[in-house]
Amino acid sequence: MAFEIERKFLVASDEWRAAAIGSSRLRDGLIARFGSGKVRVRLDGERGLLTVKGPRAGLRRAEYEYEIPALEAEEMLGILADGPIVEKTRFQVPHAGMIWEVDVHEGILAGLVLAEVELEDEDQELLLPKWLGREVTGDPAYRKADLVKEALASASAGRS
Amino acid sequence: MAFEIERKFLVASDEWRAAAIGSSRLRDGLIARFGSGKVRVRLDGERGLLTVKGPRAGLRRAEYEYEIPALEAEEMLGILADGPIVEKTRFQVPHAGMIWEVDVHEGILAGLVLAEVELEDEDQELLLPKWLGREVTGDPAYRKADLVKEALASASAGRS
Repeated sequence: MAFEIERKFLVASDEWRAAAIGSSRLRDGLIARFGSGKVRVRLDGERGLLTVKGPRAGLRRAEYEYEIPALEAEEMLGILADGPIVEKTRFQVPHAGMIWEVDVHEGILAGLVLAEVELEDEDQELLLPKWLGREVTGDPAYRKADLVKEALASASAGRS
Repeated sequence: MAFEIERKFLVASDEWRAAAIGSSRLRDGLIARFGSGKVRVRLDGERGLLTVKGPRAGLRRAEYEYEIPALEAEEMLGILADGPIVEKTRFQVPHAGMIWEVDVHEGILAGLVLAEVELEDEDQELLLPKWLGREVTGDPAYRKADLVKEALASASAGRS
């Protein structure tokens, strides 16, 4: 079975930038939520991706990801995405044998920086880089869809 | 853009059976609904399919369908499908230059037989076979998810 096992952290300082070895621009759209799962379409440079993520159980969730034509991903972002597109630059940052991904958000979530790492199994030992902040794995306050909803609400409150 | 343009009918008699040229067994699971769109996983014999269907506008809806490993389709049917799996045999029935698909449902929707045909464009003229019943294109009473919900409700009422 295809699983994603992931830990997610806030970022306390900019020190990771010096260690970054690459980056890509991502545009993510939520197609649908179901229970605590979701269907997401992503444009990663020239690659389109359609991903079904199951409900989270601890650090682990079922994940099925398929490469699709970039043009179709672009269309789905335009006509099917529920809510605004999340735009971010994802940096690859090696540390102690692992590749950390640091997501610097733009647009609706500008200011949000999150670091995540994919593990082979849940008990894997992990040396945490010192630029990490608090762990937010599984924290409902850091579910992307809820962050977007909150950002939209405060943007509209700011206008009134 | 990828579109599905489809008309759907009830079936009034069994006369189509003599004209059927092939059939396949389908198992469909709904992963998620969004607005009037849906994400569906299908097992069609040895083929897995992941399909995103947009909201319907008349006869037309955006449709994005991707072949996926059958094993992953099977897993998604088992762990992610929302509600019961819809099982049916789909018969191909040629008529007047078109291939009609006649779906004979089993399990939760046993007794339901629907015929559909895919069109090239919305205004395409269509010679209707005489075994067709009433057209139900876009009829909310024949949305698969609602039919399943209703079947479940009457099954549980029957038990009490």
